[in-house]
Amino acid sequence: MSILNIFDLLGTIAFAVSGALAAMNKRLDIFGVLIMAFVTAVGGGTLRDMMIGFTPVAWMRDFTTISTIFISYLIILFARPYVHRFKRILFYFDSFGLGAFTITGIHQGLTFGLHPVICVALGTMTAAFGGVLRDIMLNEIPQVFKKEIYATACIVGGTLFFALLSFNIDQRYAEVIAAIVVVLVRVLSIKYRLYLPMIYEWKQ
Amino acid sequence: MSILNIFDLLGTIAFAVSGALAAMNKRLDIFGVLIMAFVTAVGGGTLRDMMIGFTPVAWMRDFTTISTIFISYLIILFARPYVHRFKRILFYFDSFGLGAFTITGIHQGLTFGLHPVICVALGTMTAAFGGVLRDIMLNEIPQVFKKEIYATACIVGGTLFFALLSFNIDQRYAEVIAAIVVVLVRVLSIKYRLYLPMIYEWKQ
Amino acid sequence: MSILNIFDLLGTIAFAVSGALAAMNKRLDIFGVLIMAFVTAVGGGTLRDMMIGFTPVAWMRDFTTISTIFISYLIILFARPYVHRFKRILFYFDSFGLGAFTITGIHQGLTFGLHPVICVALGTMTAAFGGVLRDIMLNEIPQVFKKEIYATACIVGGTLFFALLSFNIDQRYAEVIAAIVVVLVRVLSIKYRLYLPMIYEWKQ
Repeated sequence: MSILNIFDLLGTIAFAVSGALAAMNKRLDIFGVLIMAFVTAVGGGTLRDMMIGFTPVAWMRDFTTISTIFISYLIILFARPYVHRFKRILFYFDSFGLGAFTITGIHQGLTFGLHPVICVALGTMTAAFGGVLRDIMLNEIPQVFKKEIYATACIVGGTLFFALLSFNIDQRYAEVIAAIVVVLVRVLSIKYRLYLPMIYEWKQ
Repeated sequence: MSILNIFDLLGTIAFAVSGALAAMNKRLDIFGVLIMAFVTAVGGGTLRDMMIGFTPVAWMRDFTTISTIFISYLIILFARPYVHRFKRILFYFDSFGLGAFTITGIHQGLTFGLHPVICVALGTMTAAFGGVLRDIMLNEIPQVFKKEIYATACIVGGTLFFALLSFNIDQRYAEVIAAIVVVLVRVLSIKYRLYLPMIYEWKQ
Repeated sequence: MSILNIFDLLGTIAFAVSGALAAMNKRLDIFGVLIMAFVTAVGGGTLRDMMIGFTPVAWMRDFTTISTIFISYLIILFARPYVHRFKRILFYFDSFGLGAFTITGIHQGLTFGLHPVICVALGTMTAAFGGVLRDIMLNEIPQVFKKEIYATACIVGGTLFFALLSFNIDQRYAEVIAAIVVVLVRVLSIKYRLYLPMIYEWKQ
């Protein structure tokens, strides 16, 4: 699992930074920026744990997450003017996080004996709902619902994970492969500008 | 309980469709539309289950709900241009759902030994909070708080349910009667254009 | 704990009134106003209890809270035109609530054996997230993230509480002292117009 742990760490950094930057753009004060870094990084996992009843929720049991978020927050507070130079790296960190968080959610669902479909939903929620909560709290329609292949990458990777399991592939390998596929789907969809279709507006 | 099961099914369809249509109006992509169908249909029950600690929450234990939402989503994706023809039917489905969901919430509250007032609150939450979450996620002030007799119908039906119980009426009958009253209050309030009063704006 | 109970009661009144007034300003109907009074008063504690898994959540076990909110709601419905005369008193009530709710949250965290840092976070969440939920539901960016020293007072008081404990001060005294410090920090920050700094807007 060590590569997933690294992905997870990089993802937590990217999610915290994304929340902090969105908060700064909305002119929140430094407390608001901290909370938004936090909500974006742990929001998906928190919702997952509350829904399956795995409490106290993950970030309360894991000081690595809290420390990572807090350090990311402190750095971004001072490094804000230079952040555009790191956009590309942050995008990759975010993609790694997308993969790792998807697997964490699926893993949790399996531990609770839930159906594969529910597990994939939990994985997607873990990876994508931090950003959804960030946007709701900052009074925006969630970007995840409007732009790019994002949650879709989680669904693809999660589905592949269970396909691999059904071929008797060892769970640890299946997890790493699925996480990497999530990252690839995300990165390639951006590179080749792939979008999900939209159904046109319907007047009530 | 079989009539309530049918009401529940029709309600799930109507709620999913309402979430999907609201999402299309906001120009979400097809993933966003799916999530909004889901949130609207299961949001109230999910919040209820998280608050009383009945986890994993309802939709994770019940494939009928998930399948119903998914099929409704697929249909609405293609039937969108014709949806105005079914507005009236969808309104009735929604009303049946309002009745069934109220009873489900009350039932759950009783199972956890909660006070009747709390049970009525849980019933109302089950029936009305999917729509509240839909509107919050789509960046609107919840319609339930502004328009028409909606949650009020749940409160009336829920209160009647406990009144019937106190007259020693069998719980199963009381549930069906209360659900039908919720439907009637809702339908008649629309027919006769009854609104809840508003207290006028107060300047801070 | 009796002084904290009184603070708690006054805080519940102030939070309910603040939710009700915000709802009236947004022209919600009388049901919407009731729900907003409720969400603002119990939202923070509810989120806390769901996250640590202390369910059914607090307001379902405590009729004092529900009754206090409902009476506050009824009064504000009729007293709205005179509410500007009570702004000063409501501000103090709100500050007392801030102190009491912070301690309640910390207390709950300790009961669940959580780390002091998590406990302070839970205390701050209990005190400040009712207002956050109020603003999200009414389609505003949370004021707590933008204006004044508010949640910061909770963090200061909560940190002091654990400092006092480490000096072997009796927990009951530490709780009262910490609550009073929260109130003082809040009141003095308003009196002397202290704000948290903001980091300037960053263009993506």
